[in-house]
Amino acid sequence: MSTEHGLAVGVDIGGSKAAAGVVDAHGRVIDSVRLPTPHRDAAQTEDVIAELVRALADRYDVEAVGVGAAGWVAADRATVLFSPHLAWRDEPLREALRARLGMPVWIENDANAAAWAEYRFGAARGESVVVCITLGTGIGGGLVIDGSLFRGAYGVAGEWGHMRVVPNGRRCACGNRGCWEQYASGRALARDGRELVESSPLASQRLLELAGHASAVEGTHVTTAAQEGDPAALELVAEAGAWLGQGIADLAAILDPAVVVVGGGVSEVGELLLGPARDRYAAVLAGRGFRPELVIKVAQLGAAAGLVGAADLARGSAASGW
Amino acid sequence: MSTEHGLAVGVDIGGSKAAAGVVDAHGRVIDSVRLPTPHRDAAQTEDVIAELVRALADRYDVEAVGVGAAGWVAADRATVLFSPHLAWRDEPLREALRARLGMPVWIENDANAAAWAEYRFGAARGESVVVCITLGTGIGGGLVIDGSLFRGAYGVAGEWGHMRVVPNGRRCACGNRGCWEQYASGRALARDGRELVESSPLASQRLLELAGHASAVEGTHVTTAAQEGDPAALELVAEAGAWLGQGIADLAAILDPAVVVVGGGVSEVGELLLGPARDRYAAVLAGRGFRPELVIKVAQLGAAAGLVGAADLARGSAASGW
Repeated sequence: MSTEHGLAVGVDIGGSKAAAGVVDAHGRVIDSVRLPTPHRDAAQTEDVIAELVRALADRYDVEAVGVGAAGWVAADRATVLFSPHLAWRDEPLREALRARLGMPVWIENDANAAAWAEYRFGAARGESVVVCITLGTGIGGGLVIDGSLFRGAYGVAGEWGHMRVVPNGRRCACGNRGCWEQYASGRALARDGRELVESSPLASQRLLELAGHASAVEGTHVTTAAQEGDPAALELVAEAGAWLGQGIADLAAILDPAVVVVGGGVSEVGELLLGPARDRYAAVLAGRGFRPELVIKVAQLGAAAGLVGAADLARGSAASGW
Repeated sequence: MSTEHGLAVGVDIGGSKAAAGVVDAHGRVIDSVRLPTPHRDAAQTEDVIAELVRALADRYDVEAVGVGAAGWVAADRATVLFSPHLAWRDEPLREALRARLGMPVWIENDANAAAWAEYRFGAARGESVVVCITLGTGIGGGLVIDGSLFRGAYGVAGEWGHMRVVPNGRRCACGNRGCWEQYASGRALARDGRELVESSPLASQRLLELAGHASAVEGTHVTTAAQEGDPAALELVAEAGAWLGQGIADLAAILDPAVVVVGGGVSEVGELLLGPARDRYAAVLAGRGFRPELVIKVAQLGAAAGLVGAADLARGSAASGW
C-alpha cells in the first residue's frame, strides 16, 4: 500500500459508466478504475461505487471519498434528490456509502464537481466568478463564486441546460420543451445529424459511413466528421456553437462571470465549436462595448474533471473536521 | 436640524424623475424630495442629485449618500459604465459627488439597491438566496446571496431583463431581440395594449377611453383597466404574467433561489399578474416534484425600495470605515 498522504478517491457516476480515481492534493490522478453503471437499479449502482472505491482504497491510504453524480443533490450534500439517467429518487447515498466504506463521503452533482476541478486545478484557477458549462449528452453547469461552489438555496443551482431558449421548442428529457441542452449538446448534434442523414443523402455521405444508418448517428459521429473537414458536419457543429454562444451571452447578463469554461466530451472538438460560440456571444452580449468582458476557455481537465473535483471537495471537507 | 443618528440619504435616479429620501437604520423614510431628471445631460443630472441631497442634508444629520441609478455600475461602485436612459458613459459619478457634497457616496444599480432593500427590510428579510425582479418600464434584477449583493465579476450581474426568451423576438432598447423585458414589463404591456387598440376596437373600448388614442396607451392604462375587470386588459396582464412565470422558472434552474421578489410599478397589479406567473412557473419548473421550491412574493417597499436600499448600502459602507 502506498503511504502518500492527502489522497482522496473521486468517483464519477454517469448514466452508462462509473469511473473512480485516486487524486492527490494537486489534483493529479494517480490511479483509476472503471465499471459500467447498472442505471436501472439504485442498490446495484451503490454496489458499483463501493466496489470501485474498495479496489483503490486497498492500495492507497485514502482519507475521504467524493462522488460526482449525474443527478440533483440536496443542499446537505448527502441525498440525491433526482437523477434523470439513474434510478435515484431521494436517495440517502452519503449515509449508505459511509456505513459501507467507513470513510467520510461527499456527494456532489457531477457538473458542480467538474466546475470545482477547473477552478482549483484547471482553466479557471483563481478566477472570481466562474461559469462552467459541461457539454456531454446534455448540458451540465457549475458556478464558483469567490472560491466557493454556489449551490443555490436547496442545492440544485447551475442547471442551465434547462433554461428555455425556444418557446415550444424541442422536447427535453426533463419534460419541458425548448431547453438549451436540446440545441447545444451531444444529443443535439446527434439529432441534427440524424435529420441530416434522413433528409440529405448527398450532404450526409460521410456521416452515414461513420454511423452505419440514420438512427445510429451519435454526437461523436458528427464531431469526428467535422474534425475531418466534412462541410455538412462542420455546419452542424457551428450551429451548435452559435446556440452555445447565445446561452453564454444570456448567462453573462445574469451572472457577469470573469470566465466561462466549456468542458465535456463535445468540447473536445475545440475551436470548430468555440469559434462560432465566441462570434455569437460577441454579437449579442447585452451592453457590449460598455462593460469588461468575460473570457471563454476550453476546460483543461478533460474527462477526469468530475472525479478530480469530487475528490478535492471530499478532501477539503474531511480536512475541515466534517 | 434633526440630531437623530444613523441617517443616510438615498437617491433614486430614473429616466424621467429623481427622488431622494432620508432613511433611518430601520429602513424608514423620514423625509423625501423629488425633481425631474434632465436625462440628456450628465452634468445636469449630477446637479439634480446634488440639489436633492443638499435639500435634505441641510435639515438632517446624514452620514452618507447612496445613489441608485438606472444604469450599469462598475465593480468599484464608483463609475456608471452605461445607462440606456441617462447620458452617462463611463461617468465617475462617485468622485464627482463626493467632492461636491463632502460626504461618503455609494453608487449602485437601482434594481440592485431595491433588491437589497427587500432583503434588509422587506419581503425577503433573512433569506439565503434572493432573486428580485423589478418590473418597471423594463425589467431590473438584483441577487442577494448569504447576506451580500452579488454583482458578478465586473459589477453588472442581475441584468435578467436582457436574457433572450424568444429567438428573433421583439426588438429591445439594448440592441438585441427577444429580451425578457420585451414580454413582461410596463413597456410590454403598453405595446400589447397599443396593438389591441389598433386591431380590435370592440375589445379595447375601455383601454381607448383611458388612453385617448392608440399611440398613447401606456402600461398603467392596461393595469388600470385590468383592475377594473376589463376582460381584454386582464388577458394582457395574464399573458405578461405567464412570461414572468417562465422567466422565474429559468432563473430557478440557474440560481435555485429561496425567494423571488417581484417589485416595480407593474407589480402593483398584484395577483392579476402573479397568479398567472405562479401557474406558469409551477407548470414548467425543471425538476418539479423532486426539489424544494422557491416562494414568489410581492415586494413590500414599493416605489421607495431603490432609495431605501441605496441609503442602507451607503450607511453600511460609511460605518465600515470606507
